Amino acid sequence: MGLVAEQAAIIHSDYSLSFSSRQPAVVHLQGQGSAIQVKNAPILLAGSIAACQSILHSHKDRSHLWGPGTGGGVLNDWSRITMNPKVFKLHPRSGELEVLVDGTYFIYSQVYYINFTDFASYEVVVDEKPFLQCTRSIETGKTNYNTCYTAGVCLLKARQKIAVKMVHADISINMSKHTTFFGAIRLGEAPAS
Amino acid sequence: MGLVAEQAAIIHSDYSLSFSSRQPAVVHLQGQGSAIQVKNAPILLAGSIAACQSILHSHKDRSHLWGPGTGGGVLNDWSRITMNPKVFKLHPRSGELEVLVDGTYFIYSQVYYINFTDFASYEVVVDEKPFLQCTRSIETGKTNYNTCYTAGVCLLKARQKIAVKMVHADISINMSKHTTFFGAIRLGEAPAS
Amino acid sequence: MGLVAEQAAIIHSDYSLSFSSRQPAVVHLQGQGSAIQVKNAPILLAGSIAACQSILHSHKDRSHLWGPGTGGGVLNDWSRITMNPKVFKLHPRSGELEVLVDGTYFIYSQVYYINFTDFASYEVVVDEKPFLQCTRSIETGKTNYNTCYTAGVCLLKARQKIAVKMVHADISINMSKHTTFFGAIRLGEAPAS
Repeated sequence: MGLVAEQAAIIHSDYSLSFSSRQPAVVHLQGQGSAIQVKNAPILLAGSIAACQSILHSHKDRSHLWGPGTGGGVLNDWSRITMNPKVFKLHPRSGELEVLVDGTYFIYSQVYYINFTDFASYEVVVDEKPFLQCTRSIETGKTNYNTCYTAGVCLLKARQKIAVKMVHADISINMSKHTTFFGAIRLGEAPAS
Repeated sequence: MGLVAEQAAIIHSDYSLSFSSRQPAVVHLQGQGSAIQVKNAPILLAGSIAACQSILHSHKDRSHLWGPGTGGGVLNDWSRITMNPKVFKLHPRSGELEVLVDGTYFIYSQVYYINFTDFASYEVVVDEKPFLQCTRSIETGKTNYNTCYTAGVCLLKARQKIAVKMVHADISINMSKHTTFFGAIRLGEAPAS
Repeated sequence: MGLVAEQAAIIHSDYSLSFSSRQPAVVHLQGQGSAIQVKNAPILLAGSIAACQSILHSHKDRSHLWGPGTGGGVLNDWSRITMNPKVFKLHPRSGELEVLVDGTYFIYSQVYYINFTDFASYEVVVDEKPFLQCTRSIETGKTNYNTCYTAGVCLLKARQKIAVKMVHADISINMSKHTTFFGAIRLGEAPAS
């Protein structure tokens, strides 16, 4: 009896995750700090493997490689505005957003560059592999204020982690809540393989 | 009998609003004018309360504070390309888009800055409180043409109003239909509180 | 018997296209080339008819007018990362993405401008008519790196074709997979006319 009830709960829970349910699986995180100076952000190699391939690579938990703060370039000063806890889990120290169920996701993000020399770029990474990149360049020596928005559809497996990562050193960003944010919408199941 | 029929209609109408229905609840508004010179747009205070918090604030109808035109910085020259009238209502004079049902919404907008000195910024506001900001800055004294896109997920209560508002004075924008637009998608119910 | 089975299959297939199904109708295409020099891209007339009107125009197959490559300004070097083949069909030579079923779609794209003088612009076109435009301008004579993202909701009929088209000559773009991409999400049926 207990087992039957548990299965029923699982099925119900499973339905409540999909778009056919009434409560959509979404997350919207906002920056909660003020200006941050990113230093020594690593430059990713051009030949790095892409995330979100239809043939999903096995992934290892490499989250221990991320330092707290933005030392590794990952933004982590997020405030949960909306989050379905059955689908998303925020790791506050690393800044990573873990998805708890397989599926097709729409991922979006915006970063507010407030001062940079020559070139500013960030990536939306999935398990540390780049998925989307958002770039601005501008005349050297000027003060620059530019929001940079990007978004796309990605197949994700449970336990994969999304993050927003600066890819160039020496940039100031403003993590105010309306200018720097990060979110996802689970659109439904992943295609059957 | 009449009451039963009305209830059935309400239930049906309610289902037709959710994503499980076949006709999604969307709106896409396009600019329909040519160049507009925005003047005396108010600068919002940095400490202003955010919209779209998980704890939704009670809201009053302050739409009478908006003047017609772009006097208060709110863009209002919109043409309805697609709109589900059960979910969205456009207030043409104020430029505000009212949502008619509670829910989780994806809101997006783009503005085409065609001439600005130094700095251009707009906000997507919910009941006059900022939710998203889209900013460009560029070398003083040059002619600039830049589209600025932003989007995010927001919990909304029925009767809340979304608008696109310029936050800085002395900017020209081009409200041509492909460059300046504003829309929303109802993703489903809001989380149970 | 065969006819009944076919109908059942059609009904099932139809349900699997809507958001109430578990497998959402999405596509995400990524650039797969390196730098491309776009030449002689046509300048679209300001008075051109808009796509995605609520009154959908009849459309003819004008795909034979697109040359292969980017001769006509249409980007065509796409790699399929995710694509529901019941809803979308990529025409690799022309770069056009055909939708196979009527519906309400969210269309998004990003292009990475890596070098341009003065002005860079592209359009998301539906049957060659502009729907969305994404524009950057910057100081003449400087090297510029800018991603340009835009997106919107559009009603589409089966057989309509979406494409990403450069609207100005003399621009270099970088079709690397994280910076230049193109996708769509079918949100549900189109409104009943």
